[in-house]
Amino acid sequence: MKLLQEKILKEGRIEGSDILKVDSFLNHQMDIDLLNEMGKEFKRRFKDKKITKILTIEASGIGISCIAAQYFNVPVVFAKKSDSRNLDKEVFESKVTSFTKGKDYIIKVSKRYLREEDDILIIDDFLANGQAIFGLKDIVKQAGSNLVGVGIVIEKGFQNGGKILRDSGIQLESLAIIKSLENNQIIFEEKKGEENK
Amino acid sequence: MKLLQEKILKEGRIEGSDILKVDSFLNHQMDIDLLNEMGKEFKRRFKDKKITKILTIEASGIGISCIAAQYFNVPVVFAKKSDSRNLDKEVFESKVTSFTKGKDYIIKVSKRYLREEDDILIIDDFLANGQAIFGLKDIVKQAGSNLVGVGIVIEKGFQNGGKILRDSGIQLESLAIIKSLENNQIIFEEKKGEENK
Repeated sequence: MKLLQEKILKEGRIEGSDILKVDSFLNHQMDIDLLNEMGKEFKRRFKDKKITKILTIEASGIGISCIAAQYFNVPVVFAKKSDSRNLDKEVFESKVTSFTKGKDYIIKVSKRYLREEDDILIIDDFLANGQAIFGLKDIVKQAGSNLVGVGIVIEKGFQNGGKILRDSGIQLESLAIIKSLENNQIIFEEKKGEENK
Repeated sequence: MKLLQEKILKEGRIEGSDILKVDSFLNHQMDIDLLNEMGKEFKRRFKDKKITKILTIEASGIGISCIAAQYFNVPVVFAKKSDSRNLDKEVFESKVTSFTKGKDYIIKVSKRYLREEDDILIIDDFLANGQAIFGLKDIVKQAGSNLVGVGIVIEKGFQNGGKILRDSGIQLESLAIIKSLENNQIIFEEKKGEENK
């Protein structure tokens, strides 16, 4: 998505060889006009699909999911993060390993809000190793819901989450795919996903 | 706000004498149509005010803030919660005591995203003792920004956060004010705030 790539080039800050900070518009301060354009683009990429609910994870997936949900006319459910597993029969839980934070945490979704008859689109801001998405996917499976696809704002194409998801046959749509952050330069992948309008 | 009161009566669940669960539409699953009506209502209540940014706190303030921001045409900044204070010169920090969780945490906002020239509207889902709002207010003060007002979805009128804020002269607009949850009954306060349309 051209507009997003331009914003990343203009405002993204590289740290080390693999961290891209986009907190001026995506995950600390949020540019609501850009979020709307991204929401429309997710709708375009999943336009023929039946979707009854968007599933995301706190905190930085919530903004884009709520804005995108307006184009799908569906509610949003966000998974909550917790340090500890307490045996709660009313929630679906999955363990997620965070490589960046070097620890495990548990994500939870109330059983009230995911049903067998739901067709789920997972949306999140970033995809790297894919651990958070695998956790959400596991929860969708526990609920017996149908996973329609995954929408990501920025995929780090040099990490393996995207490849694993695509190889498993899931429709993964990333609005921008970063090929490399080396030498303090942002290089986009232009091939994968649908066309980059 | 009538529509919100009706939704609370229909879907709110009372726990004990002071906990109201509204996770079917506000802070776990989110009803985006209702969020839009609430966003319009915030705009109506602050219609004559110059606002350049909405400030909220992760996680459950983010959804309503992003939707409301569309009516104000401003970006949203959300404060991040953290367990520990690490001395970071690039962030404004404030300590918040959570009565429900029985512990303190630190909230942080990057100095990049709050400026002296900003006119800030704080939005959050709940107001009880007001600790989170006092923390956000403290951060706005540190930044030298102008606090225009506070917009709350559900205020617990039987706790003292609202009184403290109103007594200090802040324009506090709560879309629904709960007077009592006793005897497993939800009673609304009809006087405070602007008219309940």
